[in-house]
This record gives sequence, C-alpha cells and structure tokens, in this order.
Amino acid sequence: MKINKINVKTKTKKYPIIIGRKLIGRINKFLKDNQLSFEKCLVITDKNVPNKFKNLLYKKLVSKKLIKIEITASEKNKNYKAIEKIYKILFKNTFNREDCVIAFGGGIVGDIVGFASSTYKRGIKFINIPSTLLAQVDSSIGGKTGINNEFGKNLIGSFYQPDLVISDIDILESLPRREIICGYAEILKSSIIENFNSFSYLDKNLEEILKLKTPFIERSILKSCNLKKIVVQKDEREKNFRKVLNLGHTFAHAYESALGFSKKLNHGEAVILGIKSAAEYSYKKKILSKRRLNEILNHIDRIGMSNKISNLFKKKHTEKILNFMKNDKKNNSNKINLILIKDFGKILIDFQINSSSLKSYISRRLD
Amino acid sequence: MKINKINVKTKTKKYPIIIGRKLIGRINKFLKDNQLSFEKCLVITDKNVPNKFKNLLYKKLVSKKLIKIEITASEKNKNYKAIEKIYKILFKNTFNREDCVIAFGGGIVGDIVGFASSTYKRGIKFINIPSTLLAQVDSSIGGKTGINNEFGKNLIGSFYQPDLVISDIDILESLPRREIICGYAEILKSSIIENFNSFSYLDKNLEEILKLKTPFIERSILKSCNLKKIVVQKDEREKNFRKVLNLGHTFAHAYESALGFSKKLNHGEAVILGIKSAAEYSYKKKILSKRRLNEILNHIDRIGMSNKISNLFKKKHTEKILNFMKNDKKNNSNKINLILIKDFGKILIDFQINSSSLKSYISRRLD
Repeated sequence: MKINKINVKTKTKKYPIIIGRKLIGRINKFLKDNQLSFEKCLVITDKNVPNKFKNLLYKKLVSKKLIKIEITASEKNKNYKAIEKIYKILFKNTFNREDCVIAFGGGIVGDIVGFASSTYKRGIKFINIPSTLLAQVDSSIGGKTGINNEFGKNLIGSFYQPDLVISDIDILESLPRREIICGYAEILKSSIIENFNSFSYLDKNLEEILKLKTPFIERSILKSCNLKKIVVQKDEREKNFRKVLNLGHTFAHAYESALGFSKKLNHGEAVILGIKSAAEYSYKKKILSKRRLNEILNHIDRIGMSNKISNLFKKKHTEKILNFMKNDKKNNSNKINLILIKDFGKILIDFQINSSSLKSYISRRLD
Repeated sequence: MKINKINVKTKTKKYPIIIGRKLIGRINKFLKDNQLSFEKCLVITDKNVPNKFKNLLYKKLVSKKLIKIEITASEKNKNYKAIEKIYKILFKNTFNREDCVIAFGGGIVGDIVGFASSTYKRGIKFINIPSTLLAQVDSSIGGKTGINNEFGKNLIGSFYQPDLVISDIDILESLPRREIICGYAEILKSSIIENFNSFSYLDKNLEEILKLKTPFIERSILKSCNLKKIVVQKDEREKNFRKVLNLGHTFAHAYESALGFSKKLNHGEAVILGIKSAAEYSYKKKILSKRRLNEILNHIDRIGMSNKISNLFKKKHTEKILNFMKNDKKNNSNKINLILIKDFGKILIDFQINSSSLKSYISRRLD
C-alpha cells in the first residue's frame, strides 16, 4: 500500500503529513520514523470517529500512560470551556511539555486540541489525525488553531504547527456524502488557486473522487495538501500571500454566521456557495471571463449540493450578511477585502471594495 | 541623551529593545524608525505607573483611535478573566491584526497583554513598555506570555515576540527600594550565568545600581537584556539551552507558591532566595566551590533584603515546597530538574535529582 508523505517546513517546526490507507495501525512506526517519543499521551476524539479506528489506535499506540476522552465536536461547543476541560486533564495528570496530545477527529477537534496544546505550558507535543475529508485537505495543515466566542468564529486562536499529521483515507469510508462534499469544497478551492489543469482533473473525475475511488481521492488530497504546504511555508502567519487560501471564505463565513451556524449549511457547503459568489462577483467586476465563470458554475452544479443561497436566505438577510463580511478578521481597514478570481491560477488577494457595491450584489442574489 | 538599542532576532520576529532615559516622549520617533503603523491602539496600564508618564505617552502617541484602560496587576487577577476583558474591548472596537496593543506596566501587565495579543485573531501588533526594573531586565524580553490558573503560575501561555520594547529608566525613579531589589534579582542571575567579570561589576557597584545611578543602572540593564537576547535567539521555545535562565527559579516558584503568592515575598525576592538555595545545593552536591558559594552568599547579604527563608517558612512546609518543585513545568519526568551552578559562567541545566535528597536540604534550611 503506497504511503505519500509531504514534508512541511515552517519557521517554527518541520513535520510530515502522511497520506494513504491503513495508516492508523502503523502509528508506532510513524512515531519512531519521526523521533517522536513521550511518556504520557492524551487522545481526544469525537463520537463521529468509528470505534473500529479508535480501538485500533488505542491498541497500537505505545505510551506508558494513555488517557482517552471524547468531546462534543460542535461549533457551539468550540469555546474556552472545551479548552479548560482539556487543561484540567493535562494538569491533573501532570503532563509536561515533552508529553503528547493527539487530536483524532474532524476540524473542530483539531482546532480545539491544537489551541489547548499551543497554550498548555506554552506548548506541548501535538499530533493530528484528521478523520474527515475537510480536515484532511484543509484544517489539519498549516497550524491554524482556534475557538469561537460571542463575537464570531475562530476569533481566538494561535498559529501552532503539529509535530505529525496522519491522514488515513480508510476512515473516510464511513462519512455520509454530504460530509464528503464538505471536504471537496476545499479541494475545489485549491484547484482554482493552482491552475486550469488541476481544475480540469477534478471536472473530469468528479464522481470518482466523491466516491473515494483510488487513485482519484489520493491524488486530490495530495494536491490540496501540497498547495497548502507551499502557501504556508511562504507565509505562515498570513501576513499576505496566505490570504489566497481564503478564496470563497469571506462569503462563506458570512453565510454561516448569518444562519447562526445552523446544520442547514455546513462549512464546506458554505465554502462552495462562497466560491460561487466570489466567481460571480469577479465576473460582475469584469475580472473573470464569462467562459471561466460558466466552467466554475457548471462544475458546482454537478456536485449536486442541495443548498442554494436563495433557499437559505431572504432579501432581508442582506444587511446581516454584509455586517459579518465587514467584521471578517482578515480585513485591515473599514473596507471589505475580497479574494477574487481572474483565472484559474490567478487569484487577486486584498481586492478592496466598498460595502455598497457588495450590497447590491448580495441583495440581487437573494431575490 | 544616549539611547541603547538591542536588536532581537528570533525565528518568528525581529524587534528592537530600546533602553535609555526620556524615551516615552519620543514614542512616535521609535514607531517610525521601526515602520510600525496602525489605525487603532489600545494602551493597557496599571495604577502603579505614574500619571506623569501615562499622560506623556497619551499626548505623544499618534493614533486615529486611542483607547486607554487600567487593569489590576496582581497575581490573583492574572487569569483568563483579564484576557476576556481585553478581547471584549478589541472586538467591540473591531481591532484588526494590523492594529496595536501596548502594555505599559510591570511584568504582570506585560504577561497578560502579551497573551491576549498573541491569541486575539491569532496575533495582533504588540508593544511593551515595561515600567518596573524586573520587567525591563527580564519579562519584557523573550516573548514569554502567560496567565495563572488553579494549578499554578504562568501555566497557560504562549511564545509571542513583541514588535517593540521601550525601557525608559526615568520611570523607575518612583519605585520603592523593595521593587528595585526585585528587578535586581534577575540582574544578579544574569551575571552569574555570564561570567566572573559580570558578577564582580555588580559586587563592586551594588549600591550605585540600587540607587539607579548613571551609568551603572544603564549598564546593568543592558548587560542583562543582552544575555537574555543571546539565549532566546539560540532557543526561543526553551527546548534546552534557554532553561539556563531559570537559575534559582525552580526554588523561587516553589517558595512563592507555598506562601500562596503573599505580599510577604515578591517574585524577585523569591528569585534571590532561589539563587541562594541553588548555590547552597550546588555546594552540597560538590559542584560549586566553598569560595564561590561564599562570594554569592556575601553579595546577597549586602543587598539588604529583609526576608529570610527561615522567617518565612517552618519545617512543616517542607512537603509543600517539594510538591511545588515536582510540578514545575520545566520538569520532563518524575524527577526534579534543577539548574545548578558550577562556577560563574558555568551553569548545569537539567541536573536531575530525586526528591529525597532535596527534601533533606530543604528540611534542614527550614530548621
């Protein structure tokens, strides 16, 4: 069974992302290969991870002291209380900086556990085993950690690179199609950022990828991770270039927030709608050609997502959505920064627009 | 008026520490010199900073929006509630990552504000203007931030380098002698780590330094900062070498904790007692010569500190002190790691000892 490895090297840490099948059972080999040793280990999972894989990890993981907990992975629960719960276990069991915390779950688990790990005694060893496609292609790479608070999503957090990431594709088999589409959103985003060839590959093999067929899913995950690695290495703290990865996300966060993070629209679905909006707005601003716009819109149609912006929102939501876009943490002034598309492989970051122009676009979309 | 500048260059940030007199009034020059610009600025001070200097800063600081708050700088208040209070002001005023937070106060203010800055939207601009000798020679340099919790001191935190540090010696004039001694503890520690010459300089000029006489105090602060800079640049995240800076601190933290951070013993006083203990224990372990031990003990006697270990503790406190030493966050196993002294300039880090040997030393000291 082929194992793919991507080595990430940032200013603060070097670590590998391991991508393949049947990886969980080989956890100890990966620890040894990467000189990761510890006496105590806390594994934090959520209920969505199949027991089969949890038990395999617990059986194979060698640690003098192994503590296992399950947390509720929801946006509502992604707050400081969850962090304090983790601190408490670590302190009560006198974990030190050389001990280890493993996040085994989706993006929410990774974000929470990453933040707790980065701030517990100013940083403890941290391994991420993402169990969803979304986490494997996006949130597990690049060191962004975070929690929500009353003011919004991921507004409190840190940049903290993991010591190891293991992305086992077998775990994805149990995911419902809606969850696969959720992760696919970031794969699509990566391809648009990368070039026409990457997009064409997805367009040609869409169904195989969504069905998790080898080698299509492997190649898609690998390509996404690799792009993210290159971007993160260039600009770990998102001073500039890393913003390109936020393509579609300014809209997406506003859509999610305006719905109060309802289950009606998950993050990936919001990103797909966000990419659609970014493409449409790029066309409106005469940056993107009609042909390219149609290629993107047709591809999104083929994904077969049931949510439409016009089903989710009414015209009266315009102000709400706009306000969330104004408060996006990537804005550096009172104007709204959008990431727009010129062409596949040609993304404009920091495109400053005033809110009235955006208002008329959103308002018309919700008609 | 001579301005001294130390350039710190870590993996994550380059920034200058500016040391001298009459600096506050020139804040804008320093911002410009270092290309630091922002639209909004939050200045966080504590009541111990003389109004004269606060008003000077507010008058000279150019910012479109300037918000000023005062926090209660105490170990009891150094917790997540203080962090949340800062977050709230930043969110309500929609600060973004390019805006700025200034800590103007002692070490506690710097630690709290540094942690809030590092985690607000994953990091906002952060300037530190330390107002105590302790903060100027120690806590403002090196990027350690942190808060306390029910399990102990500084157990939650991050490594986050400031964008600028301004150490104005004029501010120190209003400090009581006890506060000056508190900062002197770290100057003494630095000299022991550095070499015999550094220690001799302090031994010769002790009274002038404690009276803040020019050029003695400037030279002492500069030497201390410079040593810390060198150590931090080598090992920002305290994987190894940086531990040398904890000389005396394992004992010190235990003494402070055992007294419940009472005002009877401030941090610097605890560090002086900690250096004394480390020296005595090094002698007991036949690492340090009798002559060097006496040089250190005589110097400490001359500082004229009123606190003695035997006045502060009774023999029954031995277990309590030991337990705090066992829980020190620098320990990597169940043994206690001590930083011991072989000679001036020759410090042993990671000296592992078992607790029974230490117990007999502490128990005898408390007799």
